[in-house]
Amino acid sequence: MTAISPLAPARFPDLPPVPGVRLAAGEARLRYKGRPDLLLAALAPETAVAGTLTRSHTAAPPVHWCRALLGEGKGARGLVVNAGNANAATGEQGHAAVRQTAEAAAALVGCGADEVYVSSTGVIGEQLPVDRLTAALPGLHDRLSESAWPEAAAAIMTTDTYPKGATAAAEIDGVPVVVNGIAKGSGMIAPNMGTMLAYVFTDANLSAAALRPLVRRGVNRSFNAITVDGDTSTNDTCLLFATGAARHRRIGRAGDSRLESFRAALEAVLTDLARQIVRDGEGAAKLVAITVRGAASEAAARKLGLAIANSPLVKTAIAGEDPNWGRIVAVVGRAGVAFDQARLSIWLGADRAAANGVADPAFDEPAAARHMKGQEVEIAVEIGSGPGAATVWTCDLTHGYIEINADYRS
Amino acid sequence: MTAISPLAPARFPDLPPVPGVRLAAGEARLRYKGRPDLLLAALAPETAVAGTLTRSHTAAPPVHWCRALLGEGKGARGLVVNAGNANAATGEQGHAAVRQTAEAAAALVGCGADEVYVSSTGVIGEQLPVDRLTAALPGLHDRLSESAWPEAAAAIMTTDTYPKGATAAAEIDGVPVVVNGIAKGSGMIAPNMGTMLAYVFTDANLSAAALRPLVRRGVNRSFNAITVDGDTSTNDTCLLFATGAARHRRIGRAGDSRLESFRAALEAVLTDLARQIVRDGEGAAKLVAITVRGAASEAAARKLGLAIANSPLVKTAIAGEDPNWGRIVAVVGRAGVAFDQARLSIWLGADRAAANGVADPAFDEPAAARHMKGQEVEIAVEIGSGPGAATVWTCDLTHGYIEINADYRS
Repeated sequence: MTAISPLAPARFPDLPPVPGVRLAAGEARLRYKGRPDLLLAALAPETAVAGTLTRSHTAAPPVHWCRALLGEGKGARGLVVNAGNANAATGEQGHAAVRQTAEAAAALVGCGADEVYVSSTGVIGEQLPVDRLTAALPGLHDRLSESAWPEAAAAIMTTDTYPKGATAAAEIDGVPVVVNGIAKGSGMIAPNMGTMLAYVFTDANLSAAALRPLVRRGVNRSFNAITVDGDTSTNDTCLLFATGAARHRRIGRAGDSRLESFRAALEAVLTDLARQIVRDGEGAAKLVAITVRGAASEAAARKLGLAIANSPLVKTAIAGEDPNWGRIVAVVGRAGVAFDQARLSIWLGADRAAANGVADPAFDEPAAARHMKGQEVEIAVEIGSGPGAATVWTCDLTHGYIEINADYRS
Repeated sequence: MTAISPLAPARFPDLPPVPGVRLAAGEARLRYKGRPDLLLAALAPETAVAGTLTRSHTAAPPVHWCRALLGEGKGARGLVVNAGNANAATGEQGHAAVRQTAEAAAALVGCGADEVYVSSTGVIGEQLPVDRLTAALPGLHDRLSESAWPEAAAAIMTTDTYPKGATAAAEIDGVPVVVNGIAKGSGMIAPNMGTMLAYVFTDANLSAAALRPLVRRGVNRSFNAITVDGDTSTNDTCLLFATGAARHRRIGRAGDSRLESFRAALEAVLTDLARQIVRDGEGAAKLVAITVRGAASEAAARKLGLAIANSPLVKTAIAGEDPNWGRIVAVVGRAGVAFDQARLSIWLGADRAAANGVADPAFDEPAAARHMKGQEVEIAVEIGSGPGAATVWTCDLTHGYIEINADYRS
């Protein structure tokens, strides 16, 4: 379980400082020994925040906390994330643990508890040892720095085999700004770990009202377009913090034309993080990009793409390097999206396997089989119903997934 | 791939004759060599029929054919089923092959082509060698018999490891009637096979209007309540034929109180066949029954149950005999059914793991772990929202599934 994924990137990227953001990681020994499991971030006054949270009906107490804070629309001054315990299915005691965490961080940072965001990831159904967590916070506060990005990304890992980070530069009104992101997740993770967390930080000067549509759209095209096993979790959280330290005029609308470069940078960071999560998918040996075109809408295209990406039969065919396009026919048919079967085409790599709903007589199956032997597999589907298109990413389903999730005994 | 499942029943059950039904199986060599792959059934005049068919948007030509016949509301005189080729993603040529099959059978049986039902299961995306099929039909017609149930069940198999049959007796107005069923399916099946076919035959004297609600309700509680991998197919078909040979007065309404015993027999046969399909699930080592109670409706309970049954993380936990109830918390939360988390309870076997949304302090985890070592695992979930309850069945997700579906090369 600690082996590096064959799809791991060569190294953690260099993340530059983000003015107004300081970080520290440390050991609270919540579950893991001898590795950091706690992150504290301190944010400049006036930091705006927006985010998306799991829609699970068994959402964990820290998710409820963040949702309430986002609803109030205040700024953010702190973020605390722990790994090893999801604080999920923990009831009133779990809610109290979140409040205690926020209050402890607020006292250190010098702000209100309602300006401190909290996330947890790890085992579901065990109470969080919150005293150990709060006892570790002062040590972290003493070590806050602008450069602790690798440590921060490592501290939020559970069964991840490598830390995940991304950065992009942009400019707003001629002023350079930076967008940094860190994330964790590699399946809804053994042994019963809460899945996906992502935090993006920028020094751009944007209102929360401007951030909200940006994060919603960006998440739809990144984290909502990936799947390892279709199991979303009790703790999924993505937060975007904008410190406003950059010296351009404050922007209040997501549609402002001055945000063009920033939108692209944000989407690049989110997509990069999302793909890193899939590459670290439990047991993954191949990264799979599935593009659906010709749907009535982008949402319909994404729905079809995710159905393909979640199909165990497609994922095992990819693991077996088998150009088995019949399985794709079956999945797109049952995905709940209506279309004319006679307009269905399917490509494996560059080779069209099916056209007009039947086998393409010109299909170069050996070429498709060679494509599938690579570490990156591309599938495209066209359904001829409209202009909607979307790309989603997944990984193959291998013996490694079964080993991680079944052979483990708790 | 030909090894018998560890969950296989000891033997094929004794199916008595159904007055008005004659069957024969034989070899058309459509894909397999040296094993039967073609079934012909001849039905008495006045046989009523009802059925449910896949809602896939890539439904195969034989499914379209059966849907059109069911819409016309005529009787049925014949049934032809082939294995090895699904006649799916085959376009106009595929439709012509169905017509040719029905016409050939009709000429033998002495009826109209629109009284002959046709099903196919097997490889998707290859044209059906229909001439070989029709050439084999006369030999089958010469051998029609009332007792060829084991041969019929074997002829429709693809990657199934054993033939599936069930029977039950009932009475209507004091007259004994019999209900026989055969089925195939064990995953949406390698290499790209079309999944689930089931045919039920009775001598009861019922109108098609009476049969329709009976088959719909019965299928909801049986075939629509099982899942191996969530992949429904292009060819799923369940047909119920009633020859009317039994000497009770014809019944025209499903709600007729004289049908109480018949309804129970039909549901018993459908549920028995459905469980046999799950037991033959690709790689299955355990049969899992998941009961959801306290939902707003039976449909909501079934939706929650199927979400649990389709979760790779739950299915691998069961394979690993790991009493990992946190994974169940995560799945029921994301299943799209609203409920109050504080009312959630979860049982593994007889042992309650969670109550009021949190860990049950009295949970006997060693006892639950012992339960999970058995070949039949029971999970129960209560959500405290209403009177709706449903049971669904699935199997565990093992290395065997990966071997069958990924290690195979086409």
